[in-house]
Amino acid sequence: MTKERFILQVEYDGSNYAGYQLQPGFPTIQGEIEAALEKMYREPLRVHGSGRTDAGVHALAQIIHFDAPRELKNLNLRAALNTLLPPDIRVIRTAGGDKDFHARFSARMRHYRYIVSRRETALDRLRVWPLYHDLDVESMRICAEMIMGEHDFTAFCSAQAEVEHKRCIVSRSEWNSEGDRMIYSVSANRFLHSMVRSLTGTMTEVGKGRLTTDDFAALLENNPVPFTAFTAPPQGLYLVRVDYDIPIDWEKE
Amino acid sequence: MTKERFILQVEYDGSNYAGYQLQPGFPTIQGEIEAALEKMYREPLRVHGSGRTDAGVHALAQIIHFDAPRELKNLNLRAALNTLLPPDIRVIRTAGGDKDFHARFSARMRHYRYIVSRRETALDRLRVWPLYHDLDVESMRICAEMIMGEHDFTAFCSAQAEVEHKRCIVSRSEWNSEGDRMIYSVSANRFLHSMVRSLTGTMTEVGKGRLTTDDFAALLENNPVPFTAFTAPPQGLYLVRVDYDIPIDWEKE
Repeated sequence: MTKERFILQVEYDGSNYAGYQLQPGFPTIQGEIEAALEKMYREPLRVHGSGRTDAGVHALAQIIHFDAPRELKNLNLRAALNTLLPPDIRVIRTAGGDKDFHARFSARMRHYRYIVSRRETALDRLRVWPLYHDLDVESMRICAEMIMGEHDFTAFCSAQAEVEHKRCIVSRSEWNSEGDRMIYSVSANRFLHSMVRSLTGTMTEVGKGRLTTDDFAALLENNPVPFTAFTAPPQGLYLVRVDYDIPIDWEKE
Repeated sequence: MTKERFILQVEYDGSNYAGYQLQPGFPTIQGEIEAALEKMYREPLRVHGSGRTDAGVHALAQIIHFDAPRELKNLNLRAALNTLLPPDIRVIRTAGGDKDFHARFSARMRHYRYIVSRRETALDRLRVWPLYHDLDVESMRICAEMIMGEHDFTAFCSAQAEVEHKRCIVSRSEWNSEGDRMIYSVSANRFLHSMVRSLTGTMTEVGKGRLTTDDFAALLENNPVPFTAFTAPPQGLYLVRVDYDIPIDWEKE
């Protein structure tokens, strides 16, 4: 009998984790999910996520796949996992996966959102970045528009990013206001380590008038400049969606 | 020199507190605010809130007043308190208060909101009550409509409520859907202990078909019935606003 591939859509509150990716000795999202699956299947399993999220970063819909070593009878995978997982990690839905489906390598587009709060907040303190400065939103929008299309984002990723190249194709990049909040939405075929937080943080520096839109352009063009990108804190960042070319047939409940 | 009265609008995440009201040996909202003020004024102070909220219940705008024992020079009351308070309690704005203003006794109307989530959630697990049952919303709306006006809410408050009478005048009571959420909004001149949670919980029992709208009516009329009100959990409940006849002149920043 062939191994069965499963796909999970997972929502998590990243506040209490050292990030998505396994890190021995630290609580991680991947670690919790692998531990829950090990309890179900009584053997160690490996899961594959669409991408990493940093410590404190949240996900509304991280996509993860794994290969079950054997069939479990009368399995309600979602219910079983949610019983075993801590309450800050929830499996929202599940699907059987084609053997060609890979959560990371089949992903065509990732969508992130960064939430800036314009006022102090107790209830959302681990969900937004509070920023009380006057912000020139128009100049932030000019920067957001500037990154559309294909660019080399070397200046907007952390130095330790070990990747072959740093070119990404951005298909959405915009700032919108919603009540007391300013929301930055960005979509691309791939993202580098810390990229959304670097973009957001640096655009807010432009909004504050500490950098100009020309400074931002210089960073984007990798021109030598006497400043670096500014990284916004993790708690305002959400992985909101991942798109695949292969359709996913989610279970209906 | 006369004592100066101050008014605070406070947002809090009730998750880590035993409720608003002071309880020796337990962390409370009132206790944290009095401790912060004691650090500022170097003497014990008493604060007065518009009303109590239970353990786990949140507030978007609890109103609190206190009398300062003396004037502090160059005081930014909001900033000073927020430096001293834990991050899950935030002073949103402050005002000088007329000596006739009393946060509790001058309040004319209180507004509460209860949020039911129709799906599992990691990010909002301490902000909503997840309820996956099919719900007959129409019968819940009939119950909500039933409590409009003046009624004796004896059946919808906890037995230990020590009050002279249990009549409240309800001026708003409605269920609305917002995406994956159902929100119950209720406004009244006063609320008894656990009243909103009892109303919400019992209406959801009607929605589930475990009680009928006639059962709900019997409870409201204090008729003898073989069941009691059902109390919804605290984490979905928010004190959202308090209205006063005396206008409050909030500081602009």
